[in-house]
Amino acid sequence: MPDIVAFGEVMIRLAPPHFQRLEQTRSLDLEIGGAEFNTAAGCVRLGRTATWVSRLPDNPLGKLIANRVREIGVSDTFVQYTPHDRCGLYFLEFGASPRASGIVYDRKESAIAQVQPGMFDWPTIFRGARWFHVTGITAALSAGAAAATAEALTAAKQAGLGTSIDLNYRSKLWTPQEAGRVMSGLVNGIDLLIASEGDCRDLFSIDGTDFADMAQQLIERFGVRCVAGTRRETPLVWRNKFAAVGYTAGQLYESAWYDVEIVDRLGAGDALAAGLIHGLLDGDLEKGIHYGAAIGAIQHSILGDLPWITREEVEAVLAGSGLRIRR
Amino acid sequence: MPDIVAFGEVMIRLAPPHFQRLEQTRSLDLEIGGAEFNTAAGCVRLGRTATWVSRLPDNPLGKLIANRVREIGVSDTFVQYTPHDRCGLYFLEFGASPRASGIVYDRKESAIAQVQPGMFDWPTIFRGARWFHVTGITAALSAGAAAATAEALTAAKQAGLGTSIDLNYRSKLWTPQEAGRVMSGLVNGIDLLIASEGDCRDLFSIDGTDFADMAQQLIERFGVRCVAGTRRETPLVWRNKFAAVGYTAGQLYESAWYDVEIVDRLGAGDALAAGLIHGLLDGDLEKGIHYGAAIGAIQHSILGDLPWITREEVEAVLAGSGLRIRR
Amino acid sequence: MPDIVAFGEVMIRLAPPHFQRLEQTRSLDLEIGGAEFNTAAGCVRLGRTATWVSRLPDNPLGKLIANRVREIGVSDTFVQYTPHDRCGLYFLEFGASPRASGIVYDRKESAIAQVQPGMFDWPTIFRGARWFHVTGITAALSAGAAAATAEALTAAKQAGLGTSIDLNYRSKLWTPQEAGRVMSGLVNGIDLLIASEGDCRDLFSIDGTDFADMAQQLIERFGVRCVAGTRRETPLVWRNKFAAVGYTAGQLYESAWYDVEIVDRLGAGDALAAGLIHGLLDGDLEKGIHYGAAIGAIQHSILGDLPWITREEVEAVLAGSGLRIRR
Amino acid sequence: MPDIVAFGEVMIRLAPPHFQRLEQTRSLDLEIGGAEFNTAAGCVRLGRTATWVSRLPDNPLGKLIANRVREIGVSDTFVQYTPHDRCGLYFLEFGASPRASGIVYDRKESAIAQVQPGMFDWPTIFRGARWFHVTGITAALSAGAAAATAEALTAAKQAGLGTSIDLNYRSKLWTPQEAGRVMSGLVNGIDLLIASEGDCRDLFSIDGTDFADMAQQLIERFGVRCVAGTRRETPLVWRNKFAAVGYTAGQLYESAWYDVEIVDRLGAGDALAAGLIHGLLDGDLEKGIHYGAAIGAIQHSILGDLPWITREEVEAVLAGSGLRIRR
Amino acid sequence: MPDIVAFGEVMIRLAPPHFQRLEQTRSLDLEIGGAEFNTAAGCVRLGRTATWVSRLPDNPLGKLIANRVREIGVSDTFVQYTPHDRCGLYFLEFGASPRASGIVYDRKESAIAQVQPGMFDWPTIFRGARWFHVTGITAALSAGAAAATAEALTAAKQAGLGTSIDLNYRSKLWTPQEAGRVMSGLVNGIDLLIASEGDCRDLFSIDGTDFADMAQQLIERFGVRCVAGTRRETPLVWRNKFAAVGYTAGQLYESAWYDVEIVDRLGAGDALAAGLIHGLLDGDLEKGIHYGAAIGAIQHSILGDLPWITREEVEAVLAGSGLRIRR
Amino acid sequence: MPDIVAFGEVMIRLAPPHFQRLEQTRSLDLEIGGAEFNTAAGCVRLGRTATWVSRLPDNPLGKLIANRVREIGVSDTFVQYTPHDRCGLYFLEFGASPRASGIVYDRKESAIAQVQPGMFDWPTIFRGARWFHVTGITAALSAGAAAATAEALTAAKQAGLGTSIDLNYRSKLWTPQEAGRVMSGLVNGIDLLIASEGDCRDLFSIDGTDFADMAQQLIERFGVRCVAGTRRETPLVWRNKFAAVGYTAGQLYESAWYDVEIVDRLGAGDALAAGLIHGLLDGDLEKGIHYGAAIGAIQHSILGDLPWITREEVEAVLAGSGLRIRR
Repeated sequence: MPDIVAFGEVMIRLAPPHFQRLEQTRSLDLEIGGAEFNTAAGCVRLGRTATWVSRLPDNPLGKLIANRVREIGVSDTFVQYTPHDRCGLYFLEFGASPRASGIVYDRKESAIAQVQPGMFDWPTIFRGARWFHVTGITAALSAGAAAATAEALTAAKQAGLGTSIDLNYRSKLWTPQEAGRVMSGLVNGIDLLIASEGDCRDLFSIDGTDFADMAQQLIERFGVRCVAGTRRETPLVWRNKFAAVGYTAGQLYESAWYDVEIVDRLGAGDALAAGLIHGLLDGDLEKGIHYGAAIGAIQHSILGDLPWITREEVEAVLAGSGLRIRR
Repeated sequence: MPDIVAFGEVMIRLAPPHFQRLEQTRSLDLEIGGAEFNTAAGCVRLGRTATWVSRLPDNPLGKLIANRVREIGVSDTFVQYTPHDRCGLYFLEFGASPRASGIVYDRKESAIAQVQPGMFDWPTIFRGARWFHVTGITAALSAGAAAATAEALTAAKQAGLGTSIDLNYRSKLWTPQEAGRVMSGLVNGIDLLIASEGDCRDLFSIDGTDFADMAQQLIERFGVRCVAGTRRETPLVWRNKFAAVGYTAGQLYESAWYDVEIVDRLGAGDALAAGLIHGLLDGDLEKGIHYGAAIGAIQHSILGDLPWITREEVEAVLAGSGLRIRR
Repeated sequence: MPDIVAFGEVMIRLAPPHFQRLEQTRSLDLEIGGAEFNTAAGCVRLGRTATWVSRLPDNPLGKLIANRVREIGVSDTFVQYTPHDRCGLYFLEFGASPRASGIVYDRKESAIAQVQPGMFDWPTIFRGARWFHVTGITAALSAGAAAATAEALTAAKQAGLGTSIDLNYRSKLWTPQEAGRVMSGLVNGIDLLIASEGDCRDLFSIDGTDFADMAQQLIERFGVRCVAGTRRETPLVWRNKFAAVGYTAGQLYESAWYDVEIVDRLGAGDALAAGLIHGLLDGDLEKGIHYGAAIGAIQHSILGDLPWITREEVEAVLAGSGLRIRR
Repeated sequence: MPDIVAFGEVMIRLAPPHFQRLEQTRSLDLEIGGAEFNTAAGCVRLGRTATWVSRLPDNPLGKLIANRVREIGVSDTFVQYTPHDRCGLYFLEFGASPRASGIVYDRKESAIAQVQPGMFDWPTIFRGARWFHVTGITAALSAGAAAATAEALTAAKQAGLGTSIDLNYRSKLWTPQEAGRVMSGLVNGIDLLIASEGDCRDLFSIDGTDFADMAQQLIERFGVRCVAGTRRETPLVWRNKFAAVGYTAGQLYESAWYDVEIVDRLGAGDALAAGLIHGLLDGDLEKGIHYGAAIGAIQHSILGDLPWITREEVEAVLAGSGLRIRR
Repeated sequence: MPDIVAFGEVMIRLAPPHFQRLEQTRSLDLEIGGAEFNTAAGCVRLGRTATWVSRLPDNPLGKLIANRVREIGVSDTFVQYTPHDRCGLYFLEFGASPRASGIVYDRKESAIAQVQPGMFDWPTIFRGARWFHVTGITAALSAGAAAATAEALTAAKQAGLGTSIDLNYRSKLWTPQEAGRVMSGLVNGIDLLIASEGDCRDLFSIDGTDFADMAQQLIERFGVRCVAGTRRETPLVWRNKFAAVGYTAGQLYESAWYDVEIVDRLGAGDALAAGLIHGLLDGDLEKGIHYGAAIGAIQHSILGDLPWITREEVEAVLAGSGLRIRR
Repeated sequence: MPDIVAFGEVMIRLAPPHFQRLEQTRSLDLEIGGAEFNTAAGCVRLGRTATWVSRLPDNPLGKLIANRVREIGVSDTFVQYTPHDRCGLYFLEFGASPRASGIVYDRKESAIAQVQPGMFDWPTIFRGARWFHVTGITAALSAGAAAATAEALTAAKQAGLGTSIDLNYRSKLWTPQEAGRVMSGLVNGIDLLIASEGDCRDLFSIDGTDFADMAQQLIERFGVRCVAGTRRETPLVWRNKFAAVGYTAGQLYESAWYDVEIVDRLGAGDALAAGLIHGLLDGDLEKGIHYGAAIGAIQHSILGDLPWITREEVEAVLAGSGLRIRR
């Protein structure tokens, strides 16, 4: 009976060590990552329980993913194994200004991309759960995955769960037009929509004067309850300023700004989502914005997509604990 | 104007360090390998020139493969780049008795598997060349790849090149029946067929009293000129005895037996093929058997599929140089 | 409701890479291991479910252990966290003949060594379980740990669980006299005792003409049901011959002998115990001997104490699958 | 006959590579470090000779520490080996803003914590020496260690050595009250006290209007000759501004400010102490402040606690040599 | 028929990992690098073809260099192997403010330092080529190398190639006086001179009011066609601002300024030279300045001296693509 | 006042990891080694004290060597630093049957090769010492080194020290004729000559019916007191049988044979020499043969040339301690 259910793909991430380019490397560091699972893991680190729903190939790579899902404390009880499919992979190059970090996806034909409605028994999965989280990436994997996402959202609402979607538009997976059409259907009536101004403009043609204006339009058009997003000042690859913002019922909430030194940029948005859900499970978007900004800021300092952070550390950052070595 | 032309797939090989299982690993060592290319590289190391013909995706992984092909001295002039395909990958686990080494292939939908006849201008490729080498793996990739292989063999013979095929049956790619049907057509009239007793039995239903008998049957049925194979006594994963055997025109040639301590089992058969071609380019199968056995034996001591061996080292082993540190 | 409950210490294992001595090393590879947990993990890999009961410090090292316990699929639900204790550590040097591998323990004052009877609610822990496994190491940690072990064994028998003890005498933890006194009490009436001839002689002054004779004496003195042990011919550090033997109700069972190339000697006996329990859960000691010998033999090829082996691999070894690369 | 004698603990430091958290790591980089020894090593690098006095367990870890003490050029002649104790360990996580670096100590029951007065023959140790250095960490290890520190200070003064103490308050070892009581006794009449404003306030309830005021109060209360400290502007984990300040006989000395890019924060204060002693051995606090600030600034760029820096490099920084690659 | 011919030394570069000092390291990362070759490689990455002319010892280290030259796509056809010489080596320490990065050369008696005029058949080498590039380092290796450089420049001009020299003064190889005397002869009448203000002052006693003034003087004194250089603001070791500037025929061209986060400082100037040649091959110094600044800026983010950068990436930076992860 | 004085070169050893060839490697593991120093270190590990006499360049590489000399406990007090020379390097490739391990030397022009008689104050160096050890490698470095060796031997004898020479013929340094001529002079009247049958034949034209016969001839011709050597059966690169043999005053001493699994073949003979000297310092060649064989056998299991072995371990092997893990 986990608090949170997340549905989506986890890929194996392969990255050359120490800023090497893929072309020159002789080894790859292996991590796992997937937006929805990352968020589930963040919720676990903040003290909640979570389960991850997906499909994996029944081979050592699929098992590796499940092993690591359990390692960070998320349940893999509802993962289905398939005999012939493959794991999604992505290759990551770490950059330095003026060279951005880059990703090469090799995720076609993955086990979860073959999902179809009816494959998962959502009422059983949702029994005892309080929240369902998914992102636009799942919907982008295939028509079947989009349909299964819709099926899951419907079931979640019927089961009385809170629901959240992180738009997470990926230009390497689909066009803004496709994404806009599919996501418009999915976001209808959900409790939390996480979205950037750019994605709202490109997918929904919603262009606000500011975040609150954009959020209000989203609320009106799609009947969502809360809208949240990140703020980022990006002068460099190794250093940013980072904050979170949220809006609900006419009220805007803004977090503190954090100076972040960036070990690994991936997973920050997913950690933010975990903080948001953590707050909303207590019925408190403002709490979610503060926890989300803090855990998201810390996540920039963590190697890999997964939030190896403790709630105590998040709360210490919220309390302004400073940067001296603790000893 | 290379001496040898090889046609086939090169994959990226990813292996956990130090005998780790894939399930438990946190990094992967990256090498490249592909049977036909490995043999071309062996020929270069023995003093010949070679070019490798294939298709690669136009992304960092495809370029990585081409970089390393050039690194060992094989030409990539005729490699074609495709915009949307992927690289074949394989994951290798190193074993120890009683656990055999294992391979997980992830090679579906690779750029070379999409090849069709007509894509390569073989007469241009073969201009000035003396030998064409391919293996059963290329034919197993797809119907298009099998057809392109047939096209290449025909063009090679027309251009007056010697031709060789290593059967290299792979049970993860096709059935013995499929392989037998396709390979029967390809081996017809070639100069050198490399085959194991087991594969001959399974693919061609040829079962000899000994190697000479089997080879004689192959020669009679397929009109091949020479037949060669390895002999291996396999008590352990880390140690074998290894030798080569060849047959042509009623004459059997046998190499010395080598005690091999095994750093990396892959590529030994491909190195043997290089030694064979090296001999046959001098019209001398017996030389080929001796060079093939020696370079194949040494290849067990080399990390990766590629033959980082010099001709001087091969000739030193042939001369019985012993195992003392040279200093 | 796991099939197997295991009780004992898991330590962090720190080993210099590539045969280095501790004195000279600049890095340490980190694994976890503990005899009882290793066995629980082996049961999970063979298809059973298992939970591990212990105490850990509430710090990153304690959490690291719990993370990895979950990673391999064992439940950590009943692990207790303590605010001030430490983790047991052990430092491992890999040897080569004539230098044996060596261990430096740094496990005093660990959280589990502070355990006392009454700290764990055994009836709750055993609910739905079928087997309880412990070793002499747990009893050797402290008087409290020995008393808690006795308490657990009593509760397990009351709950109708099968019980097993691996003597696992450790001369760095206690004397043969102490061990004999304590273990005599614990082994009384258990279902499976795993013991070597040497330990029986040193701890219980039982000296048989052969394994069957020794086992019969143990059965008679302690009322145990089955006795099992390993057979090992040890010519070298990197290579052994390995087999298992068991005895019950007047019947001796012997496994095949395996040639083992040794990547990492640790955990082989614990894997054997897993195979034994796997068989006995089906009421079949002979099956246990065969599975135990096979998984124990394979375990020599695995880096780390943990059995990263699949049931399919064990059954392939039992079926004599050979040592060729699978491809 | 070393110039400097240092007394204290050296621990083995274990740190996950590349910003990993302890919870997720699979290997640990091993260094050694201890405040007093680090300072002794800094003196050696600046051209002095030094010996380190301590106790170590007679096992590979203890020998590892002694090996490395000698490696950097400090004498281990007076180190005592004990048969049963353990080495202190500390686990270090490297941070990035907003996550501070963190340390988990595992140093209880170390060999040096068991020290008692009378164990070391201080008159022999001090023969020919010119300076004795210790820090508050040694005194915090145990009552015996505090008493042995007092004994050593007395003997040093009797032998005519200069004496220095770095307060180095560690909240994980004792309370400010305990530290204040013990350190008040020890600092009496020493030549150099290194202290931060915060520690003076917390330990001695001394709160000055500025550094000079605080130092003057310390001089008056404890009869110390010189007081020194660091100045640090800490905007980030990877970058600081760093300087040194000293006061004696009514005169304040301030170093230049250095922009430091931080590879490893540990050991900077200990390197500063080495510079201070280096100056005071020439009777020149101002020289000490300048050398101390420069070597302390450079130490931020050095991996590990130990000052792998040459005097020529310190003097080049003092001369404003700039940041271009030397070639 | 390569577009560009480069003449000079390639050394093996050995660097301790992760900011370690040489004194403390236990391993060295191996790259290759040499100013002229680096530039040739940069031209290849921008879409040109190139060949590298040099001498190497006929041993594994010499072959390693040639392997890697081919790996990045530069031809090694004209490399000569010598039986007894050695490879130049250099040892690199990565720094952090206030510690500059440092280099220890071990390049005496290298194969290329033994070069003499007449050893290379320049007319054959230059057949079909369009540009010849060399630097002051080649001339500094030995009198023979300087004479061979003069010989090559003469032959290049006779063959109608464009010519470029990067002054690249190295104080560890020769004095400014020697360098000024030799380089004055070599730069006469070349098409592109790359020079810093400092080197012009020290070698040629040319001191301009600004870059244009200095360049005009160089043009007048030496009859060169274009002069180019870098601009660098160097607040720190890990971060710079970087730009390029060029002058020809009374016209000054300035690139944009780039914020560079520095993974590896080496090779940036050589990459700039590649961009300049790339522009001048199209007869366009302004293009060269822009491409040179962009590829030079990106090169700071690349591990090793070699420009593992694509033309697409250079053009993306020129187009202001920003620093967000591409996905 | 060390027991043993050793004179010779220590080089930096650079080896590709995990059986890689130099041509393919991207990193090198760094150790130090030199025959005479290795032996001195072995004596220290057996409980003696030792000093190493040599010359090093005054740069980070020279200091690295001195650091590590001290690390293992040998004194560097008499090492001289030179401003302009270089360190000797050697590159090591680890082999596997049928590929022998190989070494590429890059040691020309090293600081110690420039040594001349008169540079070292031998009477001071030998004060209080009991034994002087050198090998034929030192004499092979240069005429100056041979002369300095002769000077040192004369001084050692005058000072009453025992003397030993390990012939250690290196074909890459000189011819058998040169070696025979020089070494004939040096070995005259020494206490211990370590030599193989092959070297005696090639250098001195001494060919015995067995070891005793050869030794007797050496004793008669050169007036040496004892002769010792190794026995080795070399079936493979990873496994040997190893023993020691010695002869003095008509008596032959033979050690037990050891099965050795070979981690690193280098340094075994130097460790043997340490055991021999250890015995002869007690006036007991037989003890020396036994200790020498045991420490030499263990040395095959140690990474690097240096004997990271304890006297307790040597004595445990002598006592037949077996190969079980100690725990």
